[in-house]
Amino acid sequence: MKLTGIIAYPITPFTADGSQPDLEKLAQSIELLLKSGSDAIAPLGSTGESAYLSFAEWQQVAQHSVQVVAKRVPVIIGISELTTEQAIQKARFAEHIGADAIMVIPVSYWKLTDAEIFAYYQDIAAEISLPIMIYNNPATSGVDMSPELIVKMFRDIPQITMVKESTGDIQRMHKIYQLSAGELPFYNGSNPLALAALCAGASGWCTAAPNLLGVLPKELYSLVQTGNLKAATSSFYSQLPLLSFIVAGGLPKTIKAGLAITGFEVGQPRKPLTAANEAERATLTRLLNQF
Amino acid sequence: MKLTGIIAYPITPFTADGSQPDLEKLAQSIELLLKSGSDAIAPLGSTGESAYLSFAEWQQVAQHSVQVVAKRVPVIIGISELTTEQAIQKARFAEHIGADAIMVIPVSYWKLTDAEIFAYYQDIAAEISLPIMIYNNPATSGVDMSPELIVKMFRDIPQITMVKESTGDIQRMHKIYQLSAGELPFYNGSNPLALAALCAGASGWCTAAPNLLGVLPKELYSLVQTGNLKAATSSFYSQLPLLSFIVAGGLPKTIKAGLAITGFEVGQPRKPLTAANEAERATLTRLLNQF
Amino acid sequence: MKLTGIIAYPITPFTADGSQPDLEKLAQSIELLLKSGSDAIAPLGSTGESAYLSFAEWQQVAQHSVQVVAKRVPVIIGISELTTEQAIQKARFAEHIGADAIMVIPVSYWKLTDAEIFAYYQDIAAEISLPIMIYNNPATSGVDMSPELIVKMFRDIPQITMVKESTGDIQRMHKIYQLSAGELPFYNGSNPLALAALCAGASGWCTAAPNLLGVLPKELYSLVQTGNLKAATSSFYSQLPLLSFIVAGGLPKTIKAGLAITGFEVGQPRKPLTAANEAERATLTRLLNQF
Amino acid sequence: MKLTGIIAYPITPFTADGSQPDLEKLAQSIELLLKSGSDAIAPLGSTGESAYLSFAEWQQVAQHSVQVVAKRVPVIIGISELTTEQAIQKARFAEHIGADAIMVIPVSYWKLTDAEIFAYYQDIAAEISLPIMIYNNPATSGVDMSPELIVKMFRDIPQITMVKESTGDIQRMHKIYQLSAGELPFYNGSNPLALAALCAGASGWCTAAPNLLGVLPKELYSLVQTGNLKAATSSFYSQLPLLSFIVAGGLPKTIKAGLAITGFEVGQPRKPLTAANEAERATLTRLLNQF
Repeated sequence: MKLTGIIAYPITPFTADGSQPDLEKLAQSIELLLKSGSDAIAPLGSTGESAYLSFAEWQQVAQHSVQVVAKRVPVIIGISELTTEQAIQKARFAEHIGADAIMVIPVSYWKLTDAEIFAYYQDIAAEISLPIMIYNNPATSGVDMSPELIVKMFRDIPQITMVKESTGDIQRMHKIYQLSAGELPFYNGSNPLALAALCAGASGWCTAAPNLLGVLPKELYSLVQTGNLKAATSSFYSQLPLLSFIVAGGLPKTIKAGLAITGFEVGQPRKPLTAANEAERATLTRLLNQF
Repeated sequence: MKLTGIIAYPITPFTADGSQPDLEKLAQSIELLLKSGSDAIAPLGSTGESAYLSFAEWQQVAQHSVQVVAKRVPVIIGISELTTEQAIQKARFAEHIGADAIMVIPVSYWKLTDAEIFAYYQDIAAEISLPIMIYNNPATSGVDMSPELIVKMFRDIPQITMVKESTGDIQRMHKIYQLSAGELPFYNGSNPLALAALCAGASGWCTAAPNLLGVLPKELYSLVQTGNLKAATSSFYSQLPLLSFIVAGGLPKTIKAGLAITGFEVGQPRKPLTAANEAERATLTRLLNQF
Repeated sequence: MKLTGIIAYPITPFTADGSQPDLEKLAQSIELLLKSGSDAIAPLGSTGESAYLSFAEWQQVAQHSVQVVAKRVPVIIGISELTTEQAIQKARFAEHIGADAIMVIPVSYWKLTDAEIFAYYQDIAAEISLPIMIYNNPATSGVDMSPELIVKMFRDIPQITMVKESTGDIQRMHKIYQLSAGELPFYNGSNPLALAALCAGASGWCTAAPNLLGVLPKELYSLVQTGNLKAATSSFYSQLPLLSFIVAGGLPKTIKAGLAITGFEVGQPRKPLTAANEAERATLTRLLNQF
Repeated sequence: MKLTGIIAYPITPFTADGSQPDLEKLAQSIELLLKSGSDAIAPLGSTGESAYLSFAEWQQVAQHSVQVVAKRVPVIIGISELTTEQAIQKARFAEHIGADAIMVIPVSYWKLTDAEIFAYYQDIAAEISLPIMIYNNPATSGVDMSPELIVKMFRDIPQITMVKESTGDIQRMHKIYQLSAGELPFYNGSNPLALAALCAGASGWCTAAPNLLGVLPKELYSLVQTGNLKAATSSFYSQLPLLSFIVAGGLPKTIKAGLAITGFEVGQPRKPLTAANEAERATLTRLLNQF
């Protein structure tokens, strides 16, 4: 699996009463992302409220996503679990239903040592044969994995073949490139860092932005690939206000609100997360109207 | 309920294979804490690996703790849940089994706004009649509650009657005291801050230290209460190396290792957490030998 | 020299046009501090705008302060210089005019290594025979000295006999106490930390607060010394709003404004520093009226 | 003045005894930078130890630099002063000797409010007619100017026409671009951010790297300008180990050591700064040998 381009993150739609995932709307959401030229679909990421679902709900969403995508592009299933055992359980399920890869972020309560993080990934890898994307996002998970640790895991655990870096620090990507001699493909997970990351050699951009921006993220990726830097910079700056807004407000809230504004009702985020308030919806409407 | 003194935190012992809580050893652990003069018992806190247990396990530990303590002192049950719904479920259970209070920390994946945190506590309070202790510990939970928010919740949500502050910043306690005109009882949750907090008027000290230090934490509390400051300072400095060590290493790991050193085997922390390594055990042995 | 109690910091009054220090008012300011029971006078500290004066002005203020105090209490002269050479020049002058000690803070442009900081103090110490107080205040100087470095300098450089800690982190004081086995006298330099620091064994409190609070800081010191903790806590909380305000607004600005409110005009801080604005003066008036 | 490309920073060579600037070597150093294709010369920046010189020395270096460059490219003189008065004195001198622009960084002891920073620049601008480059580098100066403040000063103070951003945060540059609608030229002042900054539309790169890397920084700039992104990325990654090293070690120390390794002895940095130690020189030698 040689993944490049846009890895798109669907939200997890809920029924109106919030009691369960709405699988039909999930399918619609995925079709929307595919129509925008997404090169892979990554359900159950941060945007997909993975951590807020029961195991049964998580299974439903994972399974339905794989079925809907139906091998048109790779499906990468997100796993964010506190205990090794729960993570393994989900990894096995992902493999069982035919996912193409898993993306794993080790959330924490007590801080983890590097040795504990290493063992966490190794224990998961031992139970499956799927490729694993390391997902580093300390702002949500409370775990910060250094470039040194990430590259060590890439060297020592064969199934680890990719890393999604979401710290928003371009120096992390430079360091991963240097430490792995360019061999470990890295993907940008911080929307406002997209231009810098792609210019620095990122293999792709993991993003929920296509939910609202359609083909524009893919266009930015392509402009950088073809060396059309002036157009890429211009495209990036036109997207940046929206990218900054959806990140600052929290992706489940802002993406769900944005979809509702465009006429696609997908419910609200799980409590204690709340829906966008009126001021946020007004800003979002104004930002969306510019496209 | 007017709580003062030492609120003691038991670990959650596991069976040798780690598959389940060892309730018999839990009882022994609680007896040990009571013998050290603890003024309340708080199972399922950070030390108790609350976040790493299945709901069924959590229920077992909560229920058994209440039975063992048997009203000798108040029991405060810890709740750390990502979703409001799961937190409510646990709060109801705590009330059902006869706990005296709950201690609630709103763990996060997506950052919560103040309004979301307020609603989280309010939604829980609406379902029970127990007193609630706010627990602020951003290092583990990813949620930082300002003194302003904490005091507002104390003013507006009747069941909130106490706050455990674990940021380790004495200015937070000063601020809580000032904002609430001394009316909101605050408890120190950062072991190395014990002396400063008690001198600043903390009602008590929430700590796992009595597991290893026996009566010494209670002694420090009493020395401050009786204005014996020189002896209190001396007592504090003698405990500080151990207090700093158990915090730096993570309480489940270090307390379990320390108990094992004293001959009480309580199993290991849940993976990905690991047991103390040889160097850590050696340091701990040396520190314990000073008492 | 065994210094305890309140080390008081005068402002540097300027003439109305701001062109030069007003030595007569400096004398009045020092008398005010002595009347408040100060145990030492420390001109040319952060409060005294040491870093904003020409060398000639600095010399005038130093010399006049020593003359005015006239051995009634020790005088500790503040030195904050970027280059070793300039610091030595001032240290020699302080000794020449009969100061009792110097307080040295190594300000930075380029970050200094521990070895560079050590050599800075050592080079100064080699040129004089006065006792030296290390002054750690990274917020103003850009240099943060660890407890380990501070205690090492205390052990290796005989003239270093005291440390003023202004980070506002009580753990730093605990660490200095532990690393020096209680032998290195430490002084609190962060006003809102006064209670915690004195309870933790600080030898004194370095503060500009007596300029506005008169005998109250000394009273707090004495209450802690005599083990009257409840009264000390109460005294501290009554002073805290003003202490927090003068620190947050910057000491030269707020102390000068406060003195003006009480009828003692001492000019404005040196540009780019500005005088307190109307809102700040209103708050300050309200805070001062409570005493 | 429409400045683009490489703004090169000479070190300030000292005589062997460190007592004074070595003007002959300064001239040699400037010639070296011009030979590397520098588009402007910026003496007395952070690299030039501006803050460590007496006023007389600063004047010598400024004047000699202007004479040596002799209008071949623009000369931008660096000013980093604590007081407004001293900054004005230097700004006037720079204009008097025929400099083309000044670069101003407001160093701090007491933190400055936005209003104080604004007045600082305004007061300087009122005394001269040269263009002013705002220099933001909180790590050295202790003053952090937000993009909002920077763009406001650009709008309101006519002489401010450029900004050098050295925080190393690409989002700052994005923000400056957005807030000024692309009208305020920004220059990268953080060497490891060079690629990201140039791709984001930076007008140039302010750097001491040409002292050691010769034409390579200019080559990187040109590759980005011509849209040759793959070659630019490759050029950047080959320079990055050295760029990271000289920044981490402090530019005066590492650039002076690097020049010595290449056979050009320029003395040591001013105390308390020290020369590179043996290990640092060995690393530097290894890094330089790769070119």
